[in-house]
Amino acid sequence: MIGAGRIGKVHAKNITMFVPELEIKAIADPYMNAETEAFARGLRIPVVTKDTDSILKDSEIEAVLICSSTDTHADFIIRAAEEGKHIFCEKPVDYDVRRVRQAIDAVKAAGVKLQVGFCRRFDHNHRAVYDMVRSGKVGKVNIVKISSRDPEPPPISYVKASGGIFCDMMIHDFDMARFLAGSEVEEVSAVGAVLVDPAIGQAGDVDTAVVTLRFESGAIGVIDNSRRAVYGYDQRVEVFGSEGAAVNANDVPNTAAFYGADGTVTGACYKVMWDRYTEAFVSEMRAFAEAVARDLETPVTGEDGLYPVLMAAAAKSLREHRPVRIAEVC
Amino acid sequence: MIGAGRIGKVHAKNITMFVPELEIKAIADPYMNAETEAFARGLRIPVVTKDTDSILKDSEIEAVLICSSTDTHADFIIRAAEEGKHIFCEKPVDYDVRRVRQAIDAVKAAGVKLQVGFCRRFDHNHRAVYDMVRSGKVGKVNIVKISSRDPEPPPISYVKASGGIFCDMMIHDFDMARFLAGSEVEEVSAVGAVLVDPAIGQAGDVDTAVVTLRFESGAIGVIDNSRRAVYGYDQRVEVFGSEGAAVNANDVPNTAAFYGADGTVTGACYKVMWDRYTEAFVSEMRAFAEAVARDLETPVTGEDGLYPVLMAAAAKSLREHRPVRIAEVC
Amino acid sequence: MIGAGRIGKVHAKNITMFVPELEIKAIADPYMNAETEAFARGLRIPVVTKDTDSILKDSEIEAVLICSSTDTHADFIIRAAEEGKHIFCEKPVDYDVRRVRQAIDAVKAAGVKLQVGFCRRFDHNHRAVYDMVRSGKVGKVNIVKISSRDPEPPPISYVKASGGIFCDMMIHDFDMARFLAGSEVEEVSAVGAVLVDPAIGQAGDVDTAVVTLRFESGAIGVIDNSRRAVYGYDQRVEVFGSEGAAVNANDVPNTAAFYGADGTVTGACYKVMWDRYTEAFVSEMRAFAEAVARDLETPVTGEDGLYPVLMAAAAKSLREHRPVRIAEVC
Amino acid sequence: MIGAGRIGKVHAKNITMFVPELEIKAIADPYMNAETEAFARGLRIPVVTKDTDSILKDSEIEAVLICSSTDTHADFIIRAAEEGKHIFCEKPVDYDVRRVRQAIDAVKAAGVKLQVGFCRRFDHNHRAVYDMVRSGKVGKVNIVKISSRDPEPPPISYVKASGGIFCDMMIHDFDMARFLAGSEVEEVSAVGAVLVDPAIGQAGDVDTAVVTLRFESGAIGVIDNSRRAVYGYDQRVEVFGSEGAAVNANDVPNTAAFYGADGTVTGACYKVMWDRYTEAFVSEMRAFAEAVARDLETPVTGEDGLYPVLMAAAAKSLREHRPVRIAEVC
Repeated sequence: MIGAGRIGKVHAKNITMFVPELEIKAIADPYMNAETEAFARGLRIPVVTKDTDSILKDSEIEAVLICSSTDTHADFIIRAAEEGKHIFCEKPVDYDVRRVRQAIDAVKAAGVKLQVGFCRRFDHNHRAVYDMVRSGKVGKVNIVKISSRDPEPPPISYVKASGGIFCDMMIHDFDMARFLAGSEVEEVSAVGAVLVDPAIGQAGDVDTAVVTLRFESGAIGVIDNSRRAVYGYDQRVEVFGSEGAAVNANDVPNTAAFYGADGTVTGACYKVMWDRYTEAFVSEMRAFAEAVARDLETPVTGEDGLYPVLMAAAAKSLREHRPVRIAEVC
Repeated sequence: MIGAGRIGKVHAKNITMFVPELEIKAIADPYMNAETEAFARGLRIPVVTKDTDSILKDSEIEAVLICSSTDTHADFIIRAAEEGKHIFCEKPVDYDVRRVRQAIDAVKAAGVKLQVGFCRRFDHNHRAVYDMVRSGKVGKVNIVKISSRDPEPPPISYVKASGGIFCDMMIHDFDMARFLAGSEVEEVSAVGAVLVDPAIGQAGDVDTAVVTLRFESGAIGVIDNSRRAVYGYDQRVEVFGSEGAAVNANDVPNTAAFYGADGTVTGACYKVMWDRYTEAFVSEMRAFAEAVARDLETPVTGEDGLYPVLMAAAAKSLREHRPVRIAEVC
Repeated sequence: MIGAGRIGKVHAKNITMFVPELEIKAIADPYMNAETEAFARGLRIPVVTKDTDSILKDSEIEAVLICSSTDTHADFIIRAAEEGKHIFCEKPVDYDVRRVRQAIDAVKAAGVKLQVGFCRRFDHNHRAVYDMVRSGKVGKVNIVKISSRDPEPPPISYVKASGGIFCDMMIHDFDMARFLAGSEVEEVSAVGAVLVDPAIGQAGDVDTAVVTLRFESGAIGVIDNSRRAVYGYDQRVEVFGSEGAAVNANDVPNTAAFYGADGTVTGACYKVMWDRYTEAFVSEMRAFAEAVARDLETPVTGEDGLYPVLMAAAAKSLREHRPVRIAEVC
Repeated sequence: MIGAGRIGKVHAKNITMFVPELEIKAIADPYMNAETEAFARGLRIPVVTKDTDSILKDSEIEAVLICSSTDTHADFIIRAAEEGKHIFCEKPVDYDVRRVRQAIDAVKAAGVKLQVGFCRRFDHNHRAVYDMVRSGKVGKVNIVKISSRDPEPPPISYVKASGGIFCDMMIHDFDMARFLAGSEVEEVSAVGAVLVDPAIGQAGDVDTAVVTLRFESGAIGVIDNSRRAVYGYDQRVEVFGSEGAAVNANDVPNTAAFYGADGTVTGACYKVMWDRYTEAFVSEMRAFAEAVARDLETPVTGEDGLYPVLMAAAAKSLREHRPVRIAEVC
């Protein structure tokens, strides 16, 4: 494992507890500190180091998990591929389409497996909608609708470095849209506004956005994002087709309702991403383990990592005030 | 129409507006006053009188609606039957089983139709559960569960005259239990308590009660009643069988929800019975009109009026602290 | 009442049954036939005629309801206004913005009242969302989302004459969007496709469309339409704001659920518009009666009739493949 | 840990993965086999033995988990208490009230902690209802309602040995009723029938039962049980009080719904107990660890183990056809 920040620790813990097929030999982070070292020791990880090279060079290691900062992803993918290791890489691979392609090429040349960390594909609710679509239950897909709203905006420093709402937040929904539609996107039209926090606007970003998509199949997609929903993590998808619609609702911590004089009250959504997607993180790691063990294609390939980046690039539609075709940004 | 109180007025208005097959020729009430007279004139009812006899003797009138006080029901039924008129009578026919039987006998002897005003059988939600049961969807019925709670207790004066919670309130649920189970009740076990208002206890009644029923089919029923639910009219039924369960939820004035920081809030139940059962009152009158017009059996017969009275009598189980068989109170 | 087609009959019946403040003196339709005449007689409407002029000239008549074909609306409005009559006119006033303005001017000059028939504003579910927004519960409005899908496309002959999906179907949603957002629309971006029936495409229209809106307030709106939802009339709205979201669900005929081995099944949506909006038609007529009787502004003014027409005009965005500002089509 | 059957294995796995405060030193089962031994080795449990005595005598061991067959519970509790060890014991302690009291006495004499395995108290949904009740939200408790139905009856051999539906199945609900009501039960009235499988009747048991409870507080309780619900694990509770009602719904594997022409379909309930109560098993073990570590009273004491056994004994009401007071069976 390369990178032992928040997401790295989640994966490390999940692997140790729930994925017996994987065993973590080493964890490397250039910023390794005492707390992280203790964490790794607690999980009985034998090697804890600042030296990422030692992992890439370790011939005993079959696969690397890249959980470092985004700007290092492509580079680590290329080097790991060159060393013949299978790769799980957090999303996005890179914001630079050329760099993503280089990484994919390296993976292909080496014949290793690459899985990109679009964890929401493994969420039980989204997956259930996907299964209905793939089984043919909804018929021909006409409209894909996604609402995705975060409980709180990230710190402004993060906003500035993140590449903006389309790269940082809606990229998950771009992936979900393709995943659910079963078709590639041809064109992106974006509308956005600064409605949550003026500081986000000053940082050059919007905090509220609605994007429409045209798919090759003819279907239409629509995604809405907001950086702040006071009621918590709002993550709903809907696929409407010729035979019906598959629609999910938000997860809530429990099913209890209070019938009071002023109405019926049920619980708010999860306020923390890790609570909302607890199982999804485990499932994606199991899927990676299975792909490696049984020599299967990973469920989120390098191309799956590329397309959402293209869609985010096409979301320049917002600034250019016109629909933008994916073909323009390839 | 005999009796022009609250329920009489509701029926009169519904007939005028929604049941073109029925035309009200005369409305009689010994306590007829100016306000009621104006109401009747507004509906263009030709005859408005204090003289109930004039209705019973009017050879042009084919059917009478008995909406007077309970103690007069049996007598009016008998006299209307003798005059060869079809009869719609509000529930209950009488609390005295012998009197109910006399009324039924008179109806049978005269060959007229009698429908008893158990309006909830015509409620869209309860009816949908009933339809699932009758269609065989739930399979063999094992358990019938009814929750029935009023927004507010009636005035103590009413409680004293009403015959108690089993005669006045649970009688609707006794009817519903038979209706849903499709089987007669053999035995009644009642538990009760004074938890809402001590004055109800002082009046010799309970305000909270749970009754279990044994049906001839072997199925078990359970009904809970409370005189006060702060969240409004709570009326839910559930039929659990070998192939599944048919369950309804309360009606609410609208489907809007508010997702707020403290949870999701939807509307409280209806607080007024007339709002909750608006459509049911219309439907029962249409059903009566149809039974008369097409010479069909009414959907709530005299026997259907009798059995809930027997069940209310068997609810002496509460005072006698033992299960009571219907056969004991016939 | 001018025009006695389907919608005219619904209004006539509702007024007779539920709106005692209004009395229909005359009903005129150039295509008056025996069936309609019998219908009108059944409602005890004194004058039944082919001569619409006779209504406009009748000095006893205070208000006219214009339920004729769309191309006659503006003309009848102008003439009724000139005769000093209050006016209820079915939507849309006209598809020609100039004509709509002429009608509004005539109404203003005459000092009469005009209400346009956007009935969905009176729907209990949409109204409950509106009330939450107006009361400040959702805070500042950020996103307005509307899903509006019909059970079946209209006949192709109707599609050809209707002005297309934006004029005929989404116009209701354009009105709803303004109503909920409490702000005017500045810009419209439309995406559309032919996914339901190729014949609709051959008629020059789309059958599936997603439109994004920019409001003056900065808020963003999004509407999706489909001409066919197999599960019935799908009409959901959502207003997401700084303090929460107000969201409604579809009405269903009853609340009954079946818990079976394969899942829980609840009823499909209404399949017929008149069933879905039964109460809304009554409420809008009551609101009109009240505006006239108490000399209030009508709840859906001439301007409210104009703006959705402008939005439909701006939906040429679809063909021009660019966002279109309302200012361009005024 | 004494006893390494199904439930023992679940606890062992949960402790290893989720309860770092507990470390399992030894696992003993007189029927220890190779598969169980491998399981224990996989969890890195140092001592795997057939000799339960070795655990009780091991001075390094602070607490024992008794997961053996019910008939051995009381004996192991007494011996573990004598050895000064804290005890977690699966429910029920014993069906013999005298034996339960002996166990409780031994625990008290030794000053050790005892927690009984009523896991449903730790379920997120039931707990949320409990929290609403305890916080005063529902006001004074009037009615406690519990529906508890299993997907499939156990094998007949199990039914014969289990002590019957009240000891084996409803005992969980007896505990839940006390837990939610916050009051002791005074009297039990049972109704039962054989509706699921005649073989259960031949084994001397019923498979469908409704029990009403009178609490000391005056509140009334009602529990319904069925050995077979085709739609899966049905576990709903409701507490109705002076200020409202706290009601939970069943957990389902996901929130996805299909809107189809025939209605809306959502997922069936869990069909396997371990899936339904996954988190509850972890939470109860955490609570035990916390009680031991911080020297707190356990959340399910020996008395909490005793009362449901008394209630099950009072359910002889079914055979004696009369209400039975708890005081009769103490």
